[in-house]
Amino acid sequence: MLKNDQLDQWDRENFFHPSTHLAQHARGESPSRVIKTASGVHIEDRDGNKLLDAFAGLYCVNAGYGRREITDAIAAQAQELAYYHSYVGHGTEASITLSKMILDRAPANMSKVYFGLGGSDANETNIKLVWYYNNILGRPEKKKIISRWRGYHGSGIVTGSLTGLELFHKKFDLPIEQVKHTMAPDFFRRDDLSQTEEQFTAACVADLEELIAREGADTIAGFIGEPVLGTGGIVPPPKGYWPAIQAVLKKHDILLIVDEVVTGFGRLGTMFGSDKYGLEADIITIAKGLTSAYAPLSGSIIGERMWKVLEQGTDENGPIGHGWTYSAHPIGAAAGVANLKLIDDLDLVANAGSVGAYLNSSMKEALADHPHVGDVRGEGLLCAVEFVKDKDSRTFFDPADKIGAQVSATMLAQDKVIARAMPQADMLGFAPPFCLSRDEVDTIVAATARAVKTVLGS
Amino acid sequence: MLKNDQLDQWDRENFFHPSTHLAQHARGESPSRVIKTASGVHIEDRDGNKLLDAFAGLYCVNAGYGRREITDAIAAQAQELAYYHSYVGHGTEASITLSKMILDRAPANMSKVYFGLGGSDANETNIKLVWYYNNILGRPEKKKIISRWRGYHGSGIVTGSLTGLELFHKKFDLPIEQVKHTMAPDFFRRDDLSQTEEQFTAACVADLEELIAREGADTIAGFIGEPVLGTGGIVPPPKGYWPAIQAVLKKHDILLIVDEVVTGFGRLGTMFGSDKYGLEADIITIAKGLTSAYAPLSGSIIGERMWKVLEQGTDENGPIGHGWTYSAHPIGAAAGVANLKLIDDLDLVANAGSVGAYLNSSMKEALADHPHVGDVRGEGLLCAVEFVKDKDSRTFFDPADKIGAQVSATMLAQDKVIARAMPQADMLGFAPPFCLSRDEVDTIVAATARAVKTVLGS
Repeated sequence: MLKNDQLDQWDRENFFHPSTHLAQHARGESPSRVIKTASGVHIEDRDGNKLLDAFAGLYCVNAGYGRREITDAIAAQAQELAYYHSYVGHGTEASITLSKMILDRAPANMSKVYFGLGGSDANETNIKLVWYYNNILGRPEKKKIISRWRGYHGSGIVTGSLTGLELFHKKFDLPIEQVKHTMAPDFFRRDDLSQTEEQFTAACVADLEELIAREGADTIAGFIGEPVLGTGGIVPPPKGYWPAIQAVLKKHDILLIVDEVVTGFGRLGTMFGSDKYGLEADIITIAKGLTSAYAPLSGSIIGERMWKVLEQGTDENGPIGHGWTYSAHPIGAAAGVANLKLIDDLDLVANAGSVGAYLNSSMKEALADHPHVGDVRGEGLLCAVEFVKDKDSRTFFDPADKIGAQVSATMLAQDKVIARAMPQADMLGFAPPFCLSRDEVDTIVAATARAVKTVLGS
Repeated sequence: MLKNDQLDQWDRENFFHPSTHLAQHARGESPSRVIKTASGVHIEDRDGNKLLDAFAGLYCVNAGYGRREITDAIAAQAQELAYYHSYVGHGTEASITLSKMILDRAPANMSKVYFGLGGSDANETNIKLVWYYNNILGRPEKKKIISRWRGYHGSGIVTGSLTGLELFHKKFDLPIEQVKHTMAPDFFRRDDLSQTEEQFTAACVADLEELIAREGADTIAGFIGEPVLGTGGIVPPPKGYWPAIQAVLKKHDILLIVDEVVTGFGRLGTMFGSDKYGLEADIITIAKGLTSAYAPLSGSIIGERMWKVLEQGTDENGPIGHGWTYSAHPIGAAAGVANLKLIDDLDLVANAGSVGAYLNSSMKEALADHPHVGDVRGEGLLCAVEFVKDKDSRTFFDPADKIGAQVSATMLAQDKVIARAMPQADMLGFAPPFCLSRDEVDTIVAATARAVKTVLGS
């Protein structure tokens, strides 16, 4: 077995890590952590540290770590057929079965699933299909996509443009001009503190209406949003938001892409976030929860009205010029089938709902009254704690103080609990595996309260 | 076990296949094929047909099917740790080891590897990094990317723009304006039949020089090319092409992205195509051969001069805002380590070179004199046969006659051998696994000759 210091050297000499300070890492100024194994809600590194992962990797290991039902399915598929492509009508028993299982679980009026690898490439597929759709319908000018500030939809050139976070734009010349952003539906961070939640929702809708009027509805093809803002801060929508937004989109014949990469397959306590908020999507983006990250697999679930136009498109133009070599990769498909079955068998969606409610209420009880905690919010197994310098005036800390990152690091050091310092502001995010127990909730909440006290006092 | 007709129904009702005629497939007018298992160079479908796969999936199953060394590594990794992310300095023994193995095999002056899932997302990463590089260097106008007509670099919005094939542009509003195309280095299809190969190379270089002059060198950031054109028709470069092109790029300070998704890890009989043609890349794109497709994994190998600027960028701007949830996925990394080791242990790169030479010479011998075969070409384990209506005048068939597709379908029907009808024209492509034997070469060549005779006469 390789020694840890050997791995550390190889790592710094050869490995370009995502979302990392490249220079500090190469110079050995920031920690590297080599993960060895994992089980349930815990991961273990090569130094023997056992950590409670309250973020499920990157909110993706929904079924929990070390599930033999899924790893056995991967092993069996690898040995039977590790790869064949899915171009020109090819498939495997697993990929076909999974396509049916996804449609069986999806909201009404969804028709077909295209398989990708991750959420970014799935949203890339979606934008291509929306453009194709309007070309087939003879509306070549209807192409712009509206996204929200603080939405997260990927980190490619187009998908990073959809993402409404400066970190993903800076020095990359993003967003591209075909993507327009409307305001973030974050009531806590509203500009006008005198607004009620209803007034704030009305302001969100007015901002969207103004954007559409400014650009011209005949230039706007689609709107993309997460049911609950994810990487932008874990923010459930304000009251009445989705019905009002959907009414605007319908009025202007704008397609709705619901990005369920985080929320799909149970994280909110319902199979899809669309079920919870009554969203009628034209496309649903899926990834993380589809396989619980045991293998890379994403998907675009295409609604009936779009599918009919795509069919018309191939009747008029021949085979669709879109495909990834690894679309519907057999191992990803096998992992997806086993994962969705396991989630059913263990009733994990219901558990996400009930344990999620307990996590959110416990976190509120422990922290809502803290003078530097401005907001505790969440839905299902998503929860966020947002810090403020002054509560009454809702004054935020100087970002340079990195309060969120300090609290996260302190939780890890003191109690070996992983929460995520969300990238946009001083927010701590929680998105644990669905198999989380109430005892583990208590551990997470206690660790959070202790770290907040250490960093910010009581 | 599910019945075949049940799977067929589920498939047509739910599965959106890539590169497929969607309407015909949904209506049941085109065949579906459910692949069950595979071994060596053969795949087997659910109807019991055993097919010799002379295209290795999509030129990716380089080590051959059913390799226990790789599937055991996948199974072991799945059970030890199926997933953890690689953000902010996290890794696994497999991902770190693989990053070192890749750099050990890469050409000189390469520094780090970023891991993605497939070739498309790797090229997306590359373009983002090239833009970032020039922003850090204070050259915000130097952003356009030159690609070649007939190059293949993916099917996203940006990567599909890099791809120089109409099929991937049509109805998708591609290419985007930041991508400019220069002429395809395809001597056989030169416009001026009187040109010698040297004259044709000079014309390619002149076309590039003119494009750069027209756009302004200070607006051109990068040039992307495959060592040998792949999906655009399997075309080795004309004599002297790469040294002359590289001289132009150096003169104008244009970065070179070498797309080795098809050629990387041995297909040309050398570890990289860059080794064969003396290419000095700033970025090398890798995918298919990295894992022999046993698990989705791609990479961007970053050269030393770019890496230094990326480091400077994070010193100035903080962590790089780029990452995929599944970057360096543990199962992909484990597959990559086992695959590269197996390729070494079995000396498969050398076999690709020697059996590839035999494939190319045998195909030439069998078909070059056929009145409707205009060209037989290749390099290593890549080979293409191009059809013409009239040889002396180099007149091509009407594309509507689909001669290439007819020959491919006939090979399958008559002899159960898979060759790929390349999408752009009447060309048949061969890219078998590296473990191909000379007997299997003979089978492939005989099947090709028989199908050509059936479709086009002798």
